[in-house]
Amino acid sequence: MDQADDQFSQPPHDQESVKDTPQHRDASDDDFLLQGQPEERRGSRLGDTRVRIELPQHPTFRRVKQGVLEATKETYKPRTPLEQAISVSKRVLIGVPLATMQAEHERLTKFKALAVLSSDAISSVAYATEAILINLVAAGSAHLGLTLPISLVIIGLLCIVTISYRQTIPAYPGGGGSYIVAKANLGTLPGLVAAAALMIDYVLNVAVSVAAGVLNLASLFTFLSHYIVFLDIALVLLMMILNLRGVRESGSIFALPTYFFIGSALLLIIVGLFKALVIHHQPIIGTYAYVPAIEPLSIFLILRAFATGCSAMTGVEAISNGVPAFQKPETRNASITLTWMAVILGTLFLGITLLATTYAVEANPAGNPTVIAQIAKLVFTGPLAFLFPVFQIATLGILTLSAETSYSDFPRLASLLARDQFLPSLFGFRGDRLAFSVGIVFLSAIAIMLLIIFGGSTNALINLFAVGVFMSFTLSQAGMVLHWWRLRGEHSGWQRSMVINGVGALTTAIVALVISFSKFLEGAWIVIVLIPILVMMFLAIHRHYQRVERERVADIPIHPRDIHHRFIVPIAELDRASIQSLAYARSLSPHVTAVHIAVNEDEINQMQAVWDKWQQQVPEEEDIQLLIIESPYRSLIRPMLAYMDTIRERHPGDTLTLVLPEFLVAHWWEYILHNQTAFRLKAALLFRPGIVVADVPQHLRHRPKKEHK
Amino acid sequence: MDQADDQFSQPPHDQESVKDTPQHRDASDDDFLLQGQPEERRGSRLGDTRVRIELPQHPTFRRVKQGVLEATKETYKPRTPLEQAISVSKRVLIGVPLATMQAEHERLTKFKALAVLSSDAISSVAYATEAILINLVAAGSAHLGLTLPISLVIIGLLCIVTISYRQTIPAYPGGGGSYIVAKANLGTLPGLVAAAALMIDYVLNVAVSVAAGVLNLASLFTFLSHYIVFLDIALVLLMMILNLRGVRESGSIFALPTYFFIGSALLLIIVGLFKALVIHHQPIIGTYAYVPAIEPLSIFLILRAFATGCSAMTGVEAISNGVPAFQKPETRNASITLTWMAVILGTLFLGITLLATTYAVEANPAGNPTVIAQIAKLVFTGPLAFLFPVFQIATLGILTLSAETSYSDFPRLASLLARDQFLPSLFGFRGDRLAFSVGIVFLSAIAIMLLIIFGGSTNALINLFAVGVFMSFTLSQAGMVLHWWRLRGEHSGWQRSMVINGVGALTTAIVALVISFSKFLEGAWIVIVLIPILVMMFLAIHRHYQRVERERVADIPIHPRDIHHRFIVPIAELDRASIQSLAYARSLSPHVTAVHIAVNEDEINQMQAVWDKWQQQVPEEEDIQLLIIESPYRSLIRPMLAYMDTIRERHPGDTLTLVLPEFLVAHWWEYILHNQTAFRLKAALLFRPGIVVADVPQHLRHRPKKEHK
Repeated sequence: MDQADDQFSQPPHDQESVKDTPQHRDASDDDFLLQGQPEERRGSRLGDTRVRIELPQHPTFRRVKQGVLEATKETYKPRTPLEQAISVSKRVLIGVPLATMQAEHERLTKFKALAVLSSDAISSVAYATEAILINLVAAGSAHLGLTLPISLVIIGLLCIVTISYRQTIPAYPGGGGSYIVAKANLGTLPGLVAAAALMIDYVLNVAVSVAAGVLNLASLFTFLSHYIVFLDIALVLLMMILNLRGVRESGSIFALPTYFFIGSALLLIIVGLFKALVIHHQPIIGTYAYVPAIEPLSIFLILRAFATGCSAMTGVEAISNGVPAFQKPETRNASITLTWMAVILGTLFLGITLLATTYAVEANPAGNPTVIAQIAKLVFTGPLAFLFPVFQIATLGILTLSAETSYSDFPRLASLLARDQFLPSLFGFRGDRLAFSVGIVFLSAIAIMLLIIFGGSTNALINLFAVGVFMSFTLSQAGMVLHWWRLRGEHSGWQRSMVINGVGALTTAIVALVISFSKFLEGAWIVIVLIPILVMMFLAIHRHYQRVERERVADIPIHPRDIHHRFIVPIAELDRASIQSLAYARSLSPHVTAVHIAVNEDEINQMQAVWDKWQQQVPEEEDIQLLIIESPYRSLIRPMLAYMDTIRERHPGDTLTLVLPEFLVAHWWEYILHNQTAFRLKAALLFRPGIVVADVPQHLRHRPKKEHK
Repeated sequence: MDQADDQFSQPPHDQESVKDTPQHRDASDDDFLLQGQPEERRGSRLGDTRVRIELPQHPTFRRVKQGVLEATKETYKPRTPLEQAISVSKRVLIGVPLATMQAEHERLTKFKALAVLSSDAISSVAYATEAILINLVAAGSAHLGLTLPISLVIIGLLCIVTISYRQTIPAYPGGGGSYIVAKANLGTLPGLVAAAALMIDYVLNVAVSVAAGVLNLASLFTFLSHYIVFLDIALVLLMMILNLRGVRESGSIFALPTYFFIGSALLLIIVGLFKALVIHHQPIIGTYAYVPAIEPLSIFLILRAFATGCSAMTGVEAISNGVPAFQKPETRNASITLTWMAVILGTLFLGITLLATTYAVEANPAGNPTVIAQIAKLVFTGPLAFLFPVFQIATLGILTLSAETSYSDFPRLASLLARDQFLPSLFGFRGDRLAFSVGIVFLSAIAIMLLIIFGGSTNALINLFAVGVFMSFTLSQAGMVLHWWRLRGEHSGWQRSMVINGVGALTTAIVALVISFSKFLEGAWIVIVLIPILVMMFLAIHRHYQRVERERVADIPIHPRDIHHRFIVPIAELDRASIQSLAYARSLSPHVTAVHIAVNEDEINQMQAVWDKWQQQVPEEEDIQLLIIESPYRSLIRPMLAYMDTIRERHPGDTLTLVLPEFLVAHWWEYILHNQTAFRLKAALLFRPGIVVADVPQHLRHRPKKEHK
């Protein structure tokens, strides 16, 4: 770095005219005299009117090469006490800023990725079996044994979807989320539908899982029940901050509870099955307590049980969305992790279902105790009884952390949409820790809003769940089918891949339809309504950006020689500051008009006298014309605006620059002491195109240097 | 007007070079070529580089004379629907705007002035007698007859004060308020003390009289008692709007209730005294119902009774403050009105006191029914009974309207303070109807605040009252004493005048002291504390303005030839808008640097490539150097600021101009779609002096013309 600094520590003037603009060095200096400001005032440097580039000689910059500097850490140092305070608290909460180069180091190992990206999927084993039982019991206790075959079908579906996604990952190594795959193969609209569906689900997932976690916690510690919403918000904020710390750190934090749940659930299954099948020789389908049927066992009932059970599969798409978050080789690591996730999810789901059937556990319509809690109670008896509360806490942990999958994928999806100009570009910026901060904060804000509106009880929201996931599954799989069809010449085994994805698309489409219909009145309609609204919003944003890109113009010619300047300097009185503003304008153009708005005759005469006196003192080349406008109704703004309109009307080709004083004061209250005419004028000009406003900062001399507010 | 328009409807170019700058016509054109922008591009107008003044050819302006335009009504016409809506509602509430010239017509006749400026003083007869009785009763009913002599002393004091002020009015025809008189004769500090004391009293008067009015109204119509504060606020807002309509109109509105009260009070006195003295031959001091003494009759008690009774004199200074509001000849009219006011006040006060003593009315400690109501009840009997409620309503009216005196004088006093730079200059501006709108709104706001804080019950505030008035009386009279002393050579009869004012000063000083001591613990201390705080605030504001006037500077040389420009144009990409900004800068100076902040290597290379391609296409004279700054921590603002700091460090004498795009969008939500880097950069520069920011407005081409928000 020292060397680099030395390179540009020479006086820049010599350097630049020698090295910087070789292609222009032979140009006649007259060109500049014709167009630009003459250089006589520089004395001996008369001929040297080269456009210069400044290469600052300062530790804040490191010279990379010709015309390129790199900002050093010095640049980012907080300079005022306020900035320092913000910087320190940010460091404490979020951590030391990371350079863009460090992004590589922030990637996830398979171990952490499994924790972060699978928490949603794995947490669903805590309620999926119960969801099936609750539906089936409508046909009476006689058919509760159907839980097992339905679960097996779901596990089969899980296999299909997993295999499908294992094909997607290498095909889309940049992140094969439903949005990308659907957009690439089916078109923009299906892509946006998939994105909208997923985003809705992600938001719901945060609200529902945090609410569920807090409600569980409050049922353990009843004194907390007064602070439900408060705790909800605190938990969301905690997750927000942890996620703002970056992918890697949040991965470390969230790994523990995920593996803790996986371990204790496996223990439950092993102990439970061992006790039931080996020790007590129970049948796989136990004998249920009698419950009368309230409707016959219809195919619709079975489908509904199946569809609700499919909630076990929410979150399965997370890994293929998150490929870029993996350490290199990304695709390989992601594929392996996906397989592991599916194996763990399948094993746990099958295990819990087997325990439910063999112990003949029925779903409690009140939802408390849950099926999984009943199982744990039956399994962890005698000397193992201490494991029951441990397992409860593990369940609570994973349920809450399933929000983490949303935190991981939502910001990434939003950044992809921002990149493609379907969301504000803000969503694409990486924060201090390289996380997509805006997406994280936005997700938290919406979740908090939902939690406040529903008072921390999100029962109503659970029905909205899962529709979106399966819609995006379907679109993604269908996209993959077309993908393989396109590659039919180049890729051996494309038929096999296409069939797998085809089966996946078909089954997930059926599930999506079943869920939509069976839950339509209970809330799924909201999602069905929301998706097109979101898609229309995406499209409106896109159109806006497109239009801006195409049509963004200033009312200024694009060649300097075509610009005819006209400067207007409003002056309240002829003080030093006004004279400086006038000098500023006059040094740039001979077409300067000072405009004074007078509210009565006395003022006119007074200003005229002061002005004439001043003009007699200044050299010829500084003379400026004064225009006094009498404003009989005392407004200062309107006559000024009318005057500018008039000038623009008469000289439509000219570029008008209004030179305004911007008053710098040390304390906010001092603003009250200065009528903010300049500010109001600026506000009024905001919506009048074509007038350049130059703010000349006015400040008090000898003022103690005060850079903070 | 047509003629005037014709005068400048000729092409301005011919006109201006011929007529406008005769004193400069002989100057060599070379001067301009040396300093300013060469004019070759204007072709045939090569030699004509005269600085021009634009005389717009537009009905919005009327040419008054050389270099002076007058804005016509056209200028002030609302142009957008929003402005139109504001304009219409303003017209409905406040009325058609008045031109400054019309100020003369807005003056008050004696008849209206008496109503507006005396309502405070005259309203006090409704409670002054009661105030004396309440104090005296502490010494038992035996001494209640002292009410009469005490009242006579007060009336004597009133005479002295009135005569004193009659001397002040011709001496200070520009408004002889205590502030002016004390400041002119005793110095700034006593002047400010008088002003602070008066302002506190004015604010208290509004709050107390509105609250009293509403409480009275609520005791007549009990269902209103739930809406006390609401009614208070509504009443203050009503008075605010009426006063914003201008002095003359509010005068017309408030004349009726004032004269209604004067008339009915006179009727009460005549009927009452006739019945008591002529018909029933009652003694002047009647026989009081027995009340035991709780303290002996001390001189202190009598003084306290006297001091509280002096509340009858609040508002006496209003007329001498308000001389400029009178029709010409102001001083004569004001003097006559003052005399009338004193006569009416004295008569009513003496009459009511006589009625109180002859009917032996005692003050009710609960304050309800009031002494004046008891008197009216006793007087208006038999066939006259219907007059009792009429008189009640008249009392209520005058009590409420006593706030009007504050509305009339407070804004005027504030405007005087603003003129002398002791208050923000806003207080000096006349609104649409030539009233001092800011003062009126400010007074209303403070009164509403007090009413809300005290829940519409202002008993606590009544004790704060009157201290301020007598302090300002004293200062004003003392000032007059010095005034006569100074004029002792020039003015015959100065001794007599000085003695009158001296006696006035002495007596009012005694009253002020008595009130301060006797009410110190009940609240007068608040005023004693508030006055120095206000005075310090006035002085701080003054110091600020003085300092600003002395030291307001921009970091820009005051001679155009000393200004060395350096333009910096941050560009995000090389689109049409950026090219226009660059052209704008380049047309003003050859020292233009385009700065691009890149967050990674790809961006650097991409920008460099695009730039090089563009630079190869543009003519030589348009070449601009590009500087790319790599920002490894992704911030766009900090490297930009650091770069500007570096440039300023290396070229401390140069004037830096930052050319920034200002994005104009049609809808507020579109702002969200553009990361507001320019805005944040501007905010960060707010506190860095010496950098001019030129906003180049960017807008969408072919956008439907949309001038409103």
